[in-house]
Amino acid sequence: MTPQPNPQAGAAVKAADRAHVFHSWSAQELIDPLAVAGAEGSYFWDYEGKRYLDFSSGLVYTNIGYQHPKVVAAIQEQAARMTTFAPAFAVEARSEAARLIAERTPGDLDKIFFTNGGADAVEHALRMARLHTGRPKVLSAYRSYHGGTQQAVNVTGDPRRWASDSGTAGVVHFWAPFLYRSRFYAETEEQECARALEHLETTIAFEGPGTIAAIVLETIPGTAGIMMPPAGYLAGVREICDKHGIVFVLDEVMAGFGRTGTWFAAGLYDVVPDLMTFAKGVNSGYVPLGGVAISAEIAATFAERPYPGGLTYSGHPLACAAAVATINVMAEEGVVEHAARLGAEVVEPALRELAERHPSVGEVRGTGMFWALELVKDRETREPLVPYNATGQAAAPMSAFAASAKAHGLWPFVNMNRTHVVPPCNITEAELKEGLAALDTALSVADEYTR
Amino acid sequence: MTPQPNPQAGAAVKAADRAHVFHSWSAQELIDPLAVAGAEGSYFWDYEGKRYLDFSSGLVYTNIGYQHPKVVAAIQEQAARMTTFAPAFAVEARSEAARLIAERTPGDLDKIFFTNGGADAVEHALRMARLHTGRPKVLSAYRSYHGGTQQAVNVTGDPRRWASDSGTAGVVHFWAPFLYRSRFYAETEEQECARALEHLETTIAFEGPGTIAAIVLETIPGTAGIMMPPAGYLAGVREICDKHGIVFVLDEVMAGFGRTGTWFAAGLYDVVPDLMTFAKGVNSGYVPLGGVAISAEIAATFAERPYPGGLTYSGHPLACAAAVATINVMAEEGVVEHAARLGAEVVEPALRELAERHPSVGEVRGTGMFWALELVKDRETREPLVPYNATGQAAAPMSAFAASAKAHGLWPFVNMNRTHVVPPCNITEAELKEGLAALDTALSVADEYTR
Ligand SMILES: Cc1ncc(COP(=O)(O)O)c(C=O)c1O
Ligand SMILES: Cc1ncc(COP(=O)(O)O)c(C=O)c1O
Repeated sequence: MTPQPNPQAGAAVKAADRAHVFHSWSAQELIDPLAVAGAEGSYFWDYEGKRYLDFSSGLVYTNIGYQHPKVVAAIQEQAARMTTFAPAFAVEARSEAARLIAERTPGDLDKIFFTNGGADAVEHALRMARLHTGRPKVLSAYRSYHGGTQQAVNVTGDPRRWASDSGTAGVVHFWAPFLYRSRFYAETEEQECARALEHLETTIAFEGPGTIAAIVLETIPGTAGIMMPPAGYLAGVREICDKHGIVFVLDEVMAGFGRTGTWFAAGLYDVVPDLMTFAKGVNSGYVPLGGVAISAEIAATFAERPYPGGLTYSGHPLACAAAVATINVMAEEGVVEHAARLGAEVVEPALRELAERHPSVGEVRGTGMFWALELVKDRETREPLVPYNATGQAAAPMSAFAASAKAHGLWPFVNMNRTHVVPPCNITEAELKEGLAALDTALSVADEYTR
Repeated sequence: MTPQPNPQAGAAVKAADRAHVFHSWSAQELIDPLAVAGAEGSYFWDYEGKRYLDFSSGLVYTNIGYQHPKVVAAIQEQAARMTTFAPAFAVEARSEAARLIAERTPGDLDKIFFTNGGADAVEHALRMARLHTGRPKVLSAYRSYHGGTQQAVNVTGDPRRWASDSGTAGVVHFWAPFLYRSRFYAETEEQECARALEHLETTIAFEGPGTIAAIVLETIPGTAGIMMPPAGYLAGVREICDKHGIVFVLDEVMAGFGRTGTWFAAGLYDVVPDLMTFAKGVNSGYVPLGGVAISAEIAATFAERPYPGGLTYSGHPLACAAAVATINVMAEEGVVEHAARLGAEVVEPALRELAERHPSVGEVRGTGMFWALELVKDRETREPLVPYNATGQAAAPMSAFAASAKAHGLWPFVNMNRTHVVPPCNITEAELKEGLAALDTALSVADEYTR
């Protein structure tokens, strides 16, 4: 964990990257990827020996931090025993991962269909819902992200959908509650909740209840801004789904496995979906893995009728062994409880205090290790610090904020006009405080762009 | 490699599987997954201590067999160094995997976009083609498989598409050449080739050349039956694509990385696609990995314009390290050349000899470690041994064949009325002969269903 500078090695890694790696979501010639030499716990470092505290947990997935020794050892042991095996067989790591996940999922979501990541989990959940109901449409929310494959990106409600939103029929977007930027002219959480449910009911009435297979929601929308649903909203959606025979899908790819200080965010709201997607935290992304937890009723649909979907690496033994070890580590080390406690006792008070001092902070929201700061030009008008989907010069205030954070050794999560505080769930209190101090400094840079 | 019976452990694995694992492509209550205790090289074994020679390479992906010690060691080392890191960074294993793959891909397919498996590779390739051309449609072949996500299963040309073929516009299926079951009333390979190209040209003319973004083909269709394209067909498709500004996508998820006795099957036909998908053999599935190799021209489209697609585990370091080790092992050990030689010198003569003796064998076709036996009721009429997409009692002849193979210690690949001989590419000659002997016995069972 003492990073040794080795700029020559870094240059070689960077050169091969620039020559041969095509990067996600990027204009290939306008990016300049940092070459990373190593990572441990809540930190990573580059080839110059500069260390960063990772307040983004990668893409919000290393819930137990980097290189947890027990999970690394479990991967090494499974690699020695049986690194891969085809999905049609019963395999120990696969059985055990499914059992441990089913033990923690809410309600009767006791059958686990494994995928490689979040997007394909969403793809399969929507297929299950359509086949279970025999209906064509899926309702999903603006301000959401559900993955990069064609179906998943089409239910997504952010600009990443735009380039792909032809060729996929049957997706309808609605507005979920978000009081700070209410689409319903609401002034209280109660009002926002009631009006959001009314909006959903009306949308369903006009789309035709009998045409709708599923409503898919992130339990707490992640990339879109960690908007905590008001009390009663998810229960209200559950009721609407029951009334109309619609499958309720909760996407916990980002919110699941400890991120919110509970195993699944659905638990915070006492709601049980029919299908729940997961990935990321299930094994902290040490090996690609995702999946769908399936209710007894939907599983029964595919008891004697084949489920028409699959993939070569469904239930990959190495990925499942990493999940078994991760879940056991989280349980033994009380990672979930730790995230809940530090979220409430350290992060929330600190962020509220920062909000008082920094005019750029419009709102603080979140729970556990899942927090967003909404940065604004003006607290009164709530005008975002940068426009929706801004790039280049228009995004300069956020770039300046991020650059300051990085200069002070903090790697921030930045999306549009927001920064999220989403460090590993087992980050120490000292590390948190170090990061919050750097955040304080970087927010002063953001402040310069306020009116 | 001396399997120790442990039926009690097997029962526990099986029980947890049945309670919690939802399996691909299956009616959950009608399956009885074999619990597998271990695997090494070309063999795996169950908890009774019964060993099977794997003539299916899992789902045709363990091209270097199970538990290759060098690749296992590389996974263990990478796990110790850096098991995961987010895709926006330059990381050694990712850079090196991309470099080694680009070194082997045909033509100028030198940029690598990494995915988790084959389906998402196809999804992203089709998106790239649509955005590169600005056109909506994709042409793909009947008798093909391209993956289980919504877009990938819709370009698929087998019954796995049926349950999902609503909700995705812009996919048109055509017929590729297959002389044994010609759709073009052809009598020679030359005629089949010419007519298949004419059929494709006519389809394009009627669909509108300016509406077609891509033609996607498996270089040699795999699951659909290992139909070797006749000389000149792929070059003809390349020409048609060039004439109409259509992106030519070759799917080498199954055919790539040594399976055909070359690094990529495109090399057998001297054809260079614009995009090529891969997965499976790239690291023998030891860690989930797939990707798209991208031509300079298409990469240039996304030089200053962002590519709107991505995934959390793009270029996953553990998966990439397994690819680096696998490619190096294949090169050092001459696995590709071995597959070519044993295919030509052992498999082909043996299968042709079996075909002479067994009336159930209608046709033998393939190359390298990629062979199909088309089983028929009647060699004259070529009536398949079981009907297209048969299940249950209608599929009894194939089930009886498979049961006999398994009873004799051979795990066969079976799809509809075919068995494929697709063992690891580094299988030994002695193992091959052992498997071919069991195949001989099992074919006698198939013979009983001929007329
Ligand atoms: C809520 C949610 N769903 C789905 C996904 C897609 O997951 P993946 O990137 O593994 O495909 C993400 C990724 O960030 C996510 O946050
Ligand atoms: C040619 C081809 N393309 C794509 C796929 C899908 O790959 P995956 O199962 O990894 O999604 C397969 C799987 O068998 C395949 O054979």
